[in-house]
Amino acid sequence: MQMKKIGIGLVGFGYWGPNLARNFSAQQGCTLVGIYDLDAGQRQKAAARFPTALVTADYGALLAREDIQAICIATPVFTHFELAKRAILAGKDILIEKPITRTVEEGRELVALAEARGRILAVDHTFLYTGAVQKIKEVVSSGQIGDVLYLDCVRTNLGKFQEDINVIYDLAPHDLAIINHLVDGEPTSVMAMGACHSGSGLENIAYLHLEYPGGVVAHCHLNWLAPVKIRKILIAGSQKMVVYDDMDAMDKVKVYDKGITVVEDREAVLKLKVDYRSGDMWSPKVATREALDAEAQHFLACVRDRHRPLCSGEDGLKVLRIIEAAQRSLENGGERIFLQPA
Amino acid sequence: MQMKKIGIGLVGFGYWGPNLARNFSAQQGCTLVGIYDLDAGQRQKAAARFPTALVTADYGALLAREDIQAICIATPVFTHFELAKRAILAGKDILIEKPITRTVEEGRELVALAEARGRILAVDHTFLYTGAVQKIKEVVSSGQIGDVLYLDCVRTNLGKFQEDINVIYDLAPHDLAIINHLVDGEPTSVMAMGACHSGSGLENIAYLHLEYPGGVVAHCHLNWLAPVKIRKILIAGSQKMVVYDDMDAMDKVKVYDKGITVVEDREAVLKLKVDYRSGDMWSPKVATREALDAEAQHFLACVRDRHRPLCSGEDGLKVLRIIEAAQRSLENGGERIFLQPA
Amino acid sequence: MQMKKIGIGLVGFGYWGPNLARNFSAQQGCTLVGIYDLDAGQRQKAAARFPTALVTADYGALLAREDIQAICIATPVFTHFELAKRAILAGKDILIEKPITRTVEEGRELVALAEARGRILAVDHTFLYTGAVQKIKEVVSSGQIGDVLYLDCVRTNLGKFQEDINVIYDLAPHDLAIINHLVDGEPTSVMAMGACHSGSGLENIAYLHLEYPGGVVAHCHLNWLAPVKIRKILIAGSQKMVVYDDMDAMDKVKVYDKGITVVEDREAVLKLKVDYRSGDMWSPKVATREALDAEAQHFLACVRDRHRPLCSGEDGLKVLRIIEAAQRSLENGGERIFLQPA
Amino acid sequence: MQMKKIGIGLVGFGYWGPNLARNFSAQQGCTLVGIYDLDAGQRQKAAARFPTALVTADYGALLAREDIQAICIATPVFTHFELAKRAILAGKDILIEKPITRTVEEGRELVALAEARGRILAVDHTFLYTGAVQKIKEVVSSGQIGDVLYLDCVRTNLGKFQEDINVIYDLAPHDLAIINHLVDGEPTSVMAMGACHSGSGLENIAYLHLEYPGGVVAHCHLNWLAPVKIRKILIAGSQKMVVYDDMDAMDKVKVYDKGITVVEDREAVLKLKVDYRSGDMWSPKVATREALDAEAQHFLACVRDRHRPLCSGEDGLKVLRIIEAAQRSLENGGERIFLQPA
Repeated sequence: MQMKKIGIGLVGFGYWGPNLARNFSAQQGCTLVGIYDLDAGQRQKAAARFPTALVTADYGALLAREDIQAICIATPVFTHFELAKRAILAGKDILIEKPITRTVEEGRELVALAEARGRILAVDHTFLYTGAVQKIKEVVSSGQIGDVLYLDCVRTNLGKFQEDINVIYDLAPHDLAIINHLVDGEPTSVMAMGACHSGSGLENIAYLHLEYPGGVVAHCHLNWLAPVKIRKILIAGSQKMVVYDDMDAMDKVKVYDKGITVVEDREAVLKLKVDYRSGDMWSPKVATREALDAEAQHFLACVRDRHRPLCSGEDGLKVLRIIEAAQRSLENGGERIFLQPA
Repeated sequence: MQMKKIGIGLVGFGYWGPNLARNFSAQQGCTLVGIYDLDAGQRQKAAARFPTALVTADYGALLAREDIQAICIATPVFTHFELAKRAILAGKDILIEKPITRTVEEGRELVALAEARGRILAVDHTFLYTGAVQKIKEVVSSGQIGDVLYLDCVRTNLGKFQEDINVIYDLAPHDLAIINHLVDGEPTSVMAMGACHSGSGLENIAYLHLEYPGGVVAHCHLNWLAPVKIRKILIAGSQKMVVYDDMDAMDKVKVYDKGITVVEDREAVLKLKVDYRSGDMWSPKVATREALDAEAQHFLACVRDRHRPLCSGEDGLKVLRIIEAAQRSLENGGERIFLQPA
Repeated sequence: MQMKKIGIGLVGFGYWGPNLARNFSAQQGCTLVGIYDLDAGQRQKAAARFPTALVTADYGALLAREDIQAICIATPVFTHFELAKRAILAGKDILIEKPITRTVEEGRELVALAEARGRILAVDHTFLYTGAVQKIKEVVSSGQIGDVLYLDCVRTNLGKFQEDINVIYDLAPHDLAIINHLVDGEPTSVMAMGACHSGSGLENIAYLHLEYPGGVVAHCHLNWLAPVKIRKILIAGSQKMVVYDDMDAMDKVKVYDKGITVVEDREAVLKLKVDYRSGDMWSPKVATREALDAEAQHFLACVRDRHRPLCSGEDGLKVLRIIEAAQRSLENGGERIFLQPA
Repeated sequence: MQMKKIGIGLVGFGYWGPNLARNFSAQQGCTLVGIYDLDAGQRQKAAARFPTALVTADYGALLAREDIQAICIATPVFTHFELAKRAILAGKDILIEKPITRTVEEGRELVALAEARGRILAVDHTFLYTGAVQKIKEVVSSGQIGDVLYLDCVRTNLGKFQEDINVIYDLAPHDLAIINHLVDGEPTSVMAMGACHSGSGLENIAYLHLEYPGGVVAHCHLNWLAPVKIRKILIAGSQKMVVYDDMDAMDKVKVYDKGITVVEDREAVLKLKVDYRSGDMWSPKVATREALDAEAQHFLACVRDRHRPLCSGEDGLKVLRIIEAAQRSLENGGERIFLQPA
């Protein structure tokens, strides 16, 4: 007996939409039934690439299709809430681009609605589906690095400034989703500092300083104005430390043997400074499968089996709450903003 | 006619003292006349290594030597003030380890005393004498990178915790001396955040966030608990950017062609994200001379010609003022501390 | 007036064929008219992906299509000759996978036939169309590195052994095409050494040593059994040197200032050994466009304007001649084999 | 009861001599009794640095000293034989710079003489005493990498050409000593190819191809004309592979999990090509102790306990035999030269 294929409706065929289309159409268990976009040019491209799909500018027509069980939303963030709400009310499951919505308030309403209607709501924080992050989660969860002490994240790109959002809204979602996932929690406070080097008033460089329960500290350097692309996370545990360098094709994940050593003798301290690293290092091979392929497969399984996704609406909302608090801190000169548990 | 050699007295033959002794004794224009240390074992080593020098536990005897013009102080910081003061009062010029003194108050008194007595007072911020920092200073001063927009510094070592000072006092002097030197100024405010992962109460990881006049931002990540040794500074200018990686033996300094580009089209922004870097890169060959050799030569020239040193007592004091303010911020949960111009 | 689109017929939809299909179908000036494959499964994939194309197991039917001007051949090498010959006789232009044919004899016949019939014959040595190789060619041709003195190539992969060809036939075509292109010539002799570590009798590691006119030496290390993937070429000129590291996403091409220095004083020689590199380095930004996209565009332009391709049948034949000679050397214990000019 | 200190006589205070002097004088169990050099300037430096040592231009006077048990020879290679012979005849043990002598004939005589007189004869192939090579030897000897299949060595420097010897005599001794040590054997044949880019007639680039018993292949790329300094050895075993990169301060030694996989399906082969490396990697921490310090300590222990050194005269002779054969091959256009077991 063959399993019935899940019908997918894609909303938005701009930058990210084609990637979703390509990955979902390559899955065994689904069919790309329809594609919605308001732009005629994008619809033309969609039709050429997916000749058997319904391509439309009428969102109602897409939602009316009974052979569509799930909607993937890849439109600008200010449209997320309305589009997702209508889809949930139409009985569809949802995969939505990050950030989940424009405001925490909208996000809360959406999560509650999905809950009430029994719909799957997944947020596309793609990095959680990379081989590297999955390997790191496995290493951290195994306990082998001991207690997590701090996480230090650096994420830069190459001097392309956006005009509608600042660097925090653009880049922080990636790191915050990863951090929350790895420590399995939410921060209790956040501070944000930044600077704007164009006339736009939007910060192009920012630093976030987060505190998590148990004294865990996380720090993010977010930067649009860097000469090289950096995506690096350092995770220090009480027993070992992990370095995740996403730009290193060979050795993305490195695990260093290392505990804390308190040294009393100052001369010994200084002599130890000549060392380059602290112990043996192990670099596991990391799956090179495209993250979005893994994510599409996972989402389809959640739809089929009615499971909560790895990155649910609640998870997306947690990330957005931090970003809103960071924005408030930024506007108040770096003031520490405390977050109540959701 | 041969120039008269400058007589040097070395104070402290612990960790750093032997390096000073080796480098000064290798200079043409000076003689290592005497070495003072309170520890008998260190004195024995000093005598074996420099059999012609006076080796003594009597500081007065050293200062009494008329053939000693300059005193190099390489003892623990709490002793700096008294030792340097006595030496200045005895008419000696001074090269003193960083930080200049334990407190800003002591430092101010020392600087004023040296000024009043017409003595050279140099502080040993060795990095300013490296080929790399000198090349970067040259590049920045030439104007080719445009206005300096921000500096981001990362300095880590390998999990050896000290018991008397925190990571800011240990590592920040290096970066702060370099930053002040490159931007030729002092910060107007500083924030500091940190965490302690041993029972000592002394922070082993800290972040400093500094603002300099003209909107220049500087950020330092200081860390005793890292798996690898990092010493990296990123300097963004409005025209070009510089990356200084002190652990990269091949390419310590890289200068990237790069200006700011404001992109209006969101799709264009996202597509640009696939690039790895932003323009051509130029990596000048950097002098590999030992920094302390250059510094010793420079100090001797200052003594001979009565010039103000590249890194004077005032410069050392400016660094210490930032550190004291950072410590205050740290103790107040990251509060922004404003600094008055000295 | 719109230009008439060039019709393309693709032969082989196995590993490389889909890449050709994707890139040609994305070009403005052509239409992917038909796809031929003997395997029913591959035909099914081709039909799903290119629903408007003729998908067939009948080669004659493809060649009979008058709206097909050019045939792209991406089948196993032993089929190249027959398929290409029939296509040329049917009046089609040809883009053929490397190596051009199984034997030099076949290659010669094919080149002569294309010449006689006035057909474009291009060989798909894709690396020549990468941004990196094109930048290096530009640098070398500009004369700024002086005379080329030697080229040293290393190309490894990860221990996957093939059962039909040895490592020379698999990997050498890439390097030989690049070398011939950069020095704009052919070698006068070749030596080959190798070893087999499986029971197959096929070498999995080999070294080629080539001499080109004017004393230029080229050396290739070809290896299926390496722990990491290496693709590196070092090009020494009398004035400067170029390092091409294809696995380095950031700095693929580096140009080092460097001339020859003859040192008479042995002590000076030994002291110079402490340096890490020899002069300033310049790393140009390299176009990140997919090579096959550039190649498809170039081939279409050649078809339209009847130009000789950057990598013609003759060029492909020159590479194959070296490989055959290398194979002969290998079978004779590394004997030097001399090559007559074609 | 204190052990009597071993008296050391140093011959040659040029480039390497001061390093020997510094390291031997820092050992507990010995005294640097005398230093011999024909150059007055070098004698002056030696006397300033080691004021308690006899500094002389009279070799006989050095040999006559009864408190000298061992002679370290660090003079140009053409003087090695005579100096060492006289020292052995005077009853001294010997540590001699590489290469052991100018010719194999001389080397054989020296080894025989030391044997006959019961003298320790050690050759200073310093790399064998590095933490990296010792760790690799340990890994290889443990059997964990399986059978050694091949070794690939690259050793370059920066375009400083010598006028008395070619690049093989200059650089090959390092790699050959390491290879012989790791495989615990000698090659059965050697081929050498090279080129000269100055007018001197001395090769500045050369490749050696060696075969060892059991089908083990070793290849060396030796180069004076490179833009960057490379010192890299790849050791492939049937189970795992080792990469030794001496210029990588962080990760000098890497061990990769990897066996041979024979792949029958060509498409599978090609798809596997997208991977960057082959399995988990482990990078052991390597001792950072100065190699010459370890070597001095080892030599003193051999002198005291009459043990055969890790790198004996025989070992030095084996290296020289390969170099002589390589030179012969070079002069015969790369002809394979067979070596008889010593």
